[in-house]
Amino acid sequence: MTRVAVLAGGVGAARFLDGLVRVTQPSDVTAIVNVGDDMEWAGLHISPDLDTVTYTLADLVNPETGWGLRGESRRTLERLSELGGPDWFMIGDLDLATHLYRTHRLSQGDPLSAITRDLTARLGLQCVITPVTDDRLRTVVGTDAGELAFQDYFVRGRAADPVHSLRFEGAESARPAPLVTQALEAADVIVIAPSNPFLSIDPLLSVPGVRELVTSNRDNVVAVSPIIGGQAVKGPAADILSSLGHDVSALGVARIYAELASVFILDEEDSSLASMIESETGMRVVVMPTLMKDVETKMALASGTLKAALDVA
Amino acid sequence: MTRVAVLAGGVGAARFLDGLVRVTQPSDVTAIVNVGDDMEWAGLHISPDLDTVTYTLADLVNPETGWGLRGESRRTLERLSELGGPDWFMIGDLDLATHLYRTHRLSQGDPLSAITRDLTARLGLQCVITPVTDDRLRTVVGTDAGELAFQDYFVRGRAADPVHSLRFEGAESARPAPLVTQALEAADVIVIAPSNPFLSIDPLLSVPGVRELVTSNRDNVVAVSPIIGGQAVKGPAADILSSLGHDVSALGVARIYAELASVFILDEEDSSLASMIESETGMRVVVMPTLMKDVETKMALASGTLKAALDVA
Repeated sequence: MTRVAVLAGGVGAARFLDGLVRVTQPSDVTAIVNVGDDMEWAGLHISPDLDTVTYTLADLVNPETGWGLRGESRRTLERLSELGGPDWFMIGDLDLATHLYRTHRLSQGDPLSAITRDLTARLGLQCVITPVTDDRLRTVVGTDAGELAFQDYFVRGRAADPVHSLRFEGAESARPAPLVTQALEAADVIVIAPSNPFLSIDPLLSVPGVRELVTSNRDNVVAVSPIIGGQAVKGPAADILSSLGHDVSALGVARIYAELASVFILDEEDSSLASMIESETGMRVVVMPTLMKDVETKMALASGTLKAALDVA
Repeated sequence: MTRVAVLAGGVGAARFLDGLVRVTQPSDVTAIVNVGDDMEWAGLHISPDLDTVTYTLADLVNPETGWGLRGESRRTLERLSELGGPDWFMIGDLDLATHLYRTHRLSQGDPLSAITRDLTARLGLQCVITPVTDDRLRTVVGTDAGELAFQDYFVRGRAADPVHSLRFEGAESARPAPLVTQALEAADVIVIAPSNPFLSIDPLLSVPGVRELVTSNRDNVVAVSPIIGGQAVKGPAADILSSLGHDVSALGVARIYAELASVFILDEEDSSLASMIESETGMRVVVMPTLMKDVETKMALASGTLKAALDVA
């Protein structure tokens, strides 16, 4: 039995987790998911990363986008647009049911973690998916145009604005959700998923106690580079590395993760960086293909990552 | 020019208004609509009577039910049901867009009356549709099982519980919406639509100032009986007349409206009650067909009602 805790953002983390639950006991896996991207939209509480992870693991996700649901329709959103309502956030008719369910339960006083547990159980998932916190946490993005709420930056602004700063509103007073501390303490392996270090992983670490639990387990922590050949597989990670003054490469990411992880998974395309990362960060670097194109490559990355972590620990 | 203000509930009022705007200048018509049935559902603000009136006048209503939209689908609700969410309130995918639009605008601080104005303008309506108040007003229904929120009584409980009492939460501090006072003061004719006197008309009158504006214009007020042959055309009006100790007939309704109206529109089926109503209530009774089966009968009732009111006024 290998208990695995995964620090997770959206699409990249979801794909990694999809491989992971196929190469280990799903019930030994806990995904600790970012909620800094959460938003209120027309009265509804939307948790994009929780939904992406859940839909992916439940095999409901739209494979074209990596988020949203397969076979989705947009009748409601189209009518909303005709009415002159806010139509920039792409919400499908089936997806809407998740947001209504979540909002209904929240309005009854249930914590987000319990709602997520019930949703994932209803969808037949064996692994644990938990928000990092049940408290309000919101990523605020500093741009030339001033501070933007995360989805205003990410979806409405298509992540086009250079990011000068990030802060996580509510972090100081947020507490880890019940299963988060437990999963991090019990984990044989903690994986930092191939997610955006700034937008996905940092919000998780901003919740008091989480960073400490990770660093104190550094020997068991493995980070998977989200950068391949100087580019993010998806999303604005490379742009943000640049605008915040980091090296736009796996090395730049490795430096950020050096105090958290003892093992770093580097894509073969970047193998020339391996010795530099090892000498500069003290992490052991393991090179393998990291691009997740299909089930096989997801599984190979997950098992390779576990093996690399367990070899060291 | 005949300025007409209509005190309106849901389906019956909507059908009356649909006839009215076809026999007079729509821009001279103001529908003052009940919001005691409004509810919060999964984070969304739902205004069933405003929607029924709006959808009907925009020729979007489902003709089978008299509420909801034509060509509606229920993908979201079906998925919500699969997720274990609240599925007793029948919300369609297109209808949902209205609730999202309204909730979004409310969350931005816009008053319900302004939102309703924009929605009706977007749908091309010429008449004014306004909530009776922009403030929170909620009908609470006293039953054997205790007090129920309106939709818990009406939809969830299918209006099956005997009603012992009614109160209108928030009424004391509610203020008429901007156009309500103006419309009632300027009206050449005020129509009490064929709606439920207890569930639709009473909440309107509970808003401070509204009852006074109606009674001080009593000479111009005409009430249309919602009871035909001792039965409500739709809904629990007859049951409530009975459980609250009123005569279950147009006479019972006429007694309730006597202090508000000077003219009472009675269905031909009840013509035998005409002289009794006249002598007992002091209202002038005008007998005509009141069942609204199609556009022609709606128009005939509306023009007959206007004519009856203007003959007296």
